[in-house]
Amino acid sequence: MTITRADGRAPDQLRPISFERGFQKNAEGSCLVTFGGTRVLCSASFTEGVPRWKKGSGEGWVTAEYAMLPRATNTRNDRESVRGKIGGRTHEISRLIGRSLRAIIDVKALGENTIVLDCDVLDADGGTRTAAITGAYVALADAIEWGREHGAIKRGAQPLTGSVSAVSVGIIDGTPMLDLPYVEDVRAETDMNVVMTGVGGFVEVQGTAEGAPFSKDELDALLALATQGNADLAVLQALALEPTQA
Amino acid sequence: MTITRADGRAPDQLRPISFERGFQKNAEGSCLVTFGGTRVLCSASFTEGVPRWKKGSGEGWVTAEYAMLPRATNTRNDRESVRGKIGGRTHEISRLIGRSLRAIIDVKALGENTIVLDCDVLDADGGTRTAAITGAYVALADAIEWGREHGAIKRGAQPLTGSVSAVSVGIIDGTPMLDLPYVEDVRAETDMNVVMTGVGGFVEVQGTAEGAPFSKDELDALLALATQGNADLAVLQALALEPTQA
Amino acid sequence: MTITRADGRAPDQLRPISFERGFQKNAEGSCLVTFGGTRVLCSASFTEGVPRWKKGSGEGWVTAEYAMLPRATNTRNDRESVRGKIGGRTHEISRLIGRSLRAIIDVKALGENTIVLDCDVLDADGGTRTAAITGAYVALADAIEWGREHGAIKRGAQPLTGSVSAVSVGIIDGTPMLDLPYVEDVRAETDMNVVMTGVGGFVEVQGTAEGAPFSKDELDALLALATQGNADLAVLQALALEPTQA
Amino acid sequence: MTITRADGRAPDQLRPISFERGFQKNAEGSCLVTFGGTRVLCSASFTEGVPRWKKGSGEGWVTAEYAMLPRATNTRNDRESVRGKIGGRTHEISRLIGRSLRAIIDVKALGENTIVLDCDVLDADGGTRTAAITGAYVALADAIEWGREHGAIKRGAQPLTGSVSAVSVGIIDGTPMLDLPYVEDVRAETDMNVVMTGVGGFVEVQGTAEGAPFSKDELDALLALATQGNADLAVLQALALEPTQA
Amino acid sequence: MTITRADGRAPDQLRPISFERGFQKNAEGSCLVTFGGTRVLCSASFTEGVPRWKKGSGEGWVTAEYAMLPRATNTRNDRESVRGKIGGRTHEISRLIGRSLRAIIDVKALGENTIVLDCDVLDADGGTRTAAITGAYVALADAIEWGREHGAIKRGAQPLTGSVSAVSVGIIDGTPMLDLPYVEDVRAETDMNVVMTGVGGFVEVQGTAEGAPFSKDELDALLALATQGNADLAVLQALALEPTQA
Amino acid sequence: MTITRADGRAPDQLRPISFERGFQKNAEGSCLVTFGGTRVLCSASFTEGVPRWKKGSGEGWVTAEYAMLPRATNTRNDRESVRGKIGGRTHEISRLIGRSLRAIIDVKALGENTIVLDCDVLDADGGTRTAAITGAYVALADAIEWGREHGAIKRGAQPLTGSVSAVSVGIIDGTPMLDLPYVEDVRAETDMNVVMTGVGGFVEVQGTAEGAPFSKDELDALLALATQGNADLAVLQALALEPTQA
Repeated sequence: MTITRADGRAPDQLRPISFERGFQKNAEGSCLVTFGGTRVLCSASFTEGVPRWKKGSGEGWVTAEYAMLPRATNTRNDRESVRGKIGGRTHEISRLIGRSLRAIIDVKALGENTIVLDCDVLDADGGTRTAAITGAYVALADAIEWGREHGAIKRGAQPLTGSVSAVSVGIIDGTPMLDLPYVEDVRAETDMNVVMTGVGGFVEVQGTAEGAPFSKDELDALLALATQGNADLAVLQALALEPTQA
Repeated sequence: MTITRADGRAPDQLRPISFERGFQKNAEGSCLVTFGGTRVLCSASFTEGVPRWKKGSGEGWVTAEYAMLPRATNTRNDRESVRGKIGGRTHEISRLIGRSLRAIIDVKALGENTIVLDCDVLDADGGTRTAAITGAYVALADAIEWGREHGAIKRGAQPLTGSVSAVSVGIIDGTPMLDLPYVEDVRAETDMNVVMTGVGGFVEVQGTAEGAPFSKDELDALLALATQGNADLAVLQALALEPTQA
Repeated sequence: MTITRADGRAPDQLRPISFERGFQKNAEGSCLVTFGGTRVLCSASFTEGVPRWKKGSGEGWVTAEYAMLPRATNTRNDRESVRGKIGGRTHEISRLIGRSLRAIIDVKALGENTIVLDCDVLDADGGTRTAAITGAYVALADAIEWGREHGAIKRGAQPLTGSVSAVSVGIIDGTPMLDLPYVEDVRAETDMNVVMTGVGGFVEVQGTAEGAPFSKDELDALLALATQGNADLAVLQALALEPTQA
Repeated sequence: MTITRADGRAPDQLRPISFERGFQKNAEGSCLVTFGGTRVLCSASFTEGVPRWKKGSGEGWVTAEYAMLPRATNTRNDRESVRGKIGGRTHEISRLIGRSLRAIIDVKALGENTIVLDCDVLDADGGTRTAAITGAYVALADAIEWGREHGAIKRGAQPLTGSVSAVSVGIIDGTPMLDLPYVEDVRAETDMNVVMTGVGGFVEVQGTAEGAPFSKDELDALLALATQGNADLAVLQALALEPTQA
Repeated sequence: MTITRADGRAPDQLRPISFERGFQKNAEGSCLVTFGGTRVLCSASFTEGVPRWKKGSGEGWVTAEYAMLPRATNTRNDRESVRGKIGGRTHEISRLIGRSLRAIIDVKALGENTIVLDCDVLDADGGTRTAAITGAYVALADAIEWGREHGAIKRGAQPLTGSVSAVSVGIIDGTPMLDLPYVEDVRAETDMNVVMTGVGGFVEVQGTAEGAPFSKDELDALLALATQGNADLAVLQALALEPTQA
Repeated sequence: MTITRADGRAPDQLRPISFERGFQKNAEGSCLVTFGGTRVLCSASFTEGVPRWKKGSGEGWVTAEYAMLPRATNTRNDRESVRGKIGGRTHEISRLIGRSLRAIIDVKALGENTIVLDCDVLDADGGTRTAAITGAYVALADAIEWGREHGAIKRGAQPLTGSVSAVSVGIIDGTPMLDLPYVEDVRAETDMNVVMTGVGGFVEVQGTAEGAPFSKDELDALLALATQGNADLAVLQALALEPTQA
């Protein structure tokens, strides 16, 4: 029997994915990434120099901040600036994005430069953190290219050790499924975000039992699905970056 | 002698203006407004009910929040959520947008409903507050239409008493000019933001001498320019809203 | 027909104005300014040196902070220090005062010195921001005199390029009126604050339609009234400063 | 040998004390209190009703907030509202003033009414907290009189069980002295603030060894001095209140 | 070849584990848990009633807060209360503890009661979050027992659906190791925290590549190690709870 | 007639006192102090160097921070880190502890070193601030010993000029009593905290009338009781420190 999802996809199929580079005019790298109904604006700001605690190390620094526009969601969320503090979820996702990107950065090759990735969710329909990581990689690659062209990165240095992408997987009614939209996300018994390099190494695996605990077999099925989804995303990232990095 | 500006415009000419309605999928009204290199995402959230201090008044409430994405500008700005407080400029502009929109709202006709306008600057190239007001009106009109279609606004009630738009004007090298981009804005001796209704009434006039004080004649010249610019914007707003409100 | 106001004034008449210099003993300049029932304590703190971003520029810096005592108003307002953040109105007025004073300051002549104006409202009865600007000028003039006497400002340098004052005007029941107390302010259809130099140049014009939009004619009538009011204030400021600057 | 102080006073002499009632026009009770070079504006805000945790108790509530204007001191202090938090010293003094006033309040007789005392230091020259308590009592007495006249306090009820005042004492060069100005305060080996009722009961005794620890004899000498100073203040308070409470 | 660790343990051996119940006298459940040099004070506060958004649901709520004493670590950390905000790491761990405990709670059986788990790290030597989860379960079990004894939980209801524990695993010099102290944690190439139920189900799996990405084989080896470590912890938890739950 | 207290003590008897040194493994000095049901974890962090404003003075700095764990009390208190600000009581006690310890420190002998005392209340049963001061002294002594052994304090220098302890006293049903537990504290008519040196000098005396004002006789009786209690505490501190300082 073939299971079909509400949006007509097969269980192991990604939502329509697209990357619109150069979306924000001022950023050294910028990419509006779309995973179905989820859209995240990822921009990379390249600045020469590093935070004080890295000065003189010869190494660069990459960090990230994630946020949602108030009306990315079905009902409006108050701004964290108005509330005067950043919520736990925002903190957690910002940290995840930063770690994920640093996993494919050679800080020595980057030299004493800082790249800040801003990931602002314009529309939220599940998988905002995985879309953010996937899009941020594209913005990061463009910012590094910018640094190379402007002489801030040494000739011949390659700060990128590979590519990185992320996808969510989950078990719904007993079936492992790839890239969950919001309606599936809230129903998932187990929910996992998997960050991988373009050559199939694991960077982050975050699985959570939403209802009953999950077994090793279920974990294996989810990881297999995520491995394939990330392989597909890596190809799409490479295609999106082709024109300028050819 | 004809004065031509860096971008080839005549002194009394607006930058290319566009309105992309429905930009954020979840909002009851949403409009990505473009004034040349400035782009502001304006979304209107319609909710039934009003803040506690208006309960039982039979009147609605319209308010606005303005913010900039960190990389809307040439160099990255820290997020106000991270800093833990909202700056004076943000407060000031949020209040201006709210007052401007309330000027064309009949709160009785709106009934006990609240509309929050979120104006997030994606790209900043001068005139972000005037673009925000102009685009927010379009989002507001759509949200009111949504309220009417969903029965939250009484049949026959018309909460909009007219349209509202805003434009900046300034004196540069002695010449009054309309709709200043960033490069002109920083050079302007006098800088004025003028908010007007579609039928030519003044809603807000905010003029500031950046260098020498300005005279009544200069003020008059600027107001004349703004009057014409706002008349043009009112037409463009009406055209943008045409398909659904015909 | 002669229109008389609740307090017996003619439409174009200022409230009783007074300046009590030296009110705060420690400040380099201090002035308790009275506009009828409104009293604002304006003090100027002169310090040698400038903020980091002005260092080495050879230029000085003038800034202002506005606040209300909790019981300046009819009912008590919570302290912004207790709330942990500054409201939008406070920010807006502080920025307006600072800009207004900088309009008559020659930062080169001031040299690398900083003057902070603190404007604390003791009693609020309308027009607190215009009283604050008008009184702050007097405190500023005294602080500059202090700087000159103490050798912090170069001999022969004149950091003041003129005087500055402000007054509110509004349309009430169709009649333009000068210097509105609270009871008039809340009834005004249009409300305008006009900051001018002692020789009649405009520094800031901020007009807001509280009810219906206003016309160019109404704007002109209000500006004429404000021009005359500010001329009167400039004379009173000069008289107040006479003893020490003679 | 007679010891004379810098300002010519005898060791057991108060500075010139004055009370200017009705200083803030809107407050139900208001008093500008002067202790030599120290001036504190104390205002009492009377509101019907009590905080949630006292509702239905039949009892009233009295509390206090203390603050300094930025330029009360010799060099300017940043505003606590701008810093975004209240310092420990401010908290400590606010709590002391509140406790001191509650010591002479019969909350049952006050009924479910709240009185907030705002004590804002205009000029600081030592002893601001003791001046604040002493002046706040006068404002409080006026606010209670207001409550009685306006029917918020029951006819015949007397919420005041007595008067309260405070004075600082300290040991300087081995000599106990009364009511220290700033120049003495910083030199004092031991510093004590003593709050007493008008009939000589102790409400608060806060003694601190600034240098060497102090002995029981020194403590006794300081308490004797404070007892006499507070007796004098009680007389001055009664005189200040005479006209309206006769 | 047998690998021995700095502290003499085998790679698959836990550090000395202990549970001291009733450590905080006032809490309904309290446990000082020790994992070698790491000590976390876990206390459970039982209150009748639930947050507003759960009222009337018939369901209870369990949540957790994690914090470190300033000197739990090798050098002192500033207090988050003094800094005025909670850091991302604290938020992230608090959320993880809460989710882990909710995985073994039947909220219907708990009824409309709230249990807050406070996990304060007294000494930090690696694995503070896993020790916190493991100790918090013990405190939670005692608080539920308290609720049952005091009639807040219905007779016969069993809010606990099982036990939960957590342990860290990591790869060091190519060898998977269990329960890492700080000196191993900083050297680990891959670091994973695994939360499991007492019967071997996975609740949370959080793996992070600190250096190179990890492979599926490495992931499997780590999960096997964690499965065994959690099985051991489940036995120790049961023993610790024996006296009162026999 | 002999008065016996609820816990069987005589009015002039301390609760069981104990000091557990070295409680937190990482701190240079650490002491878990017990006053009956009150337990406070006091740790001293020794760092070389001083805050900016003391640099080059040749003097050291000692400061303290006090806090309560959420469940030290009978019902849970929200964390101040979560509330985002520190309460007045916390500030007040932190300042008191710091002043008390500085009273027995010779900052010249300490040299340019900083010692921060963290006093975290694990269980609160009255007298937490006095226990904190008493225990903090023990932690401080150990930290100074550590500084001497590690060469941060000059050979032969003795930064401690003596010992310091604190105890609460109060009048209950007319009887002065020593070292009040919570049940007595809430009933006390007068409440006093007395900080003294080991040789009987007064460092801080803070007395508060909770109900009726107190007389000089009552004050004297309380001070006599506190003097004796502090003498006992000084002996216990010396015994606790004996092993290492012999």
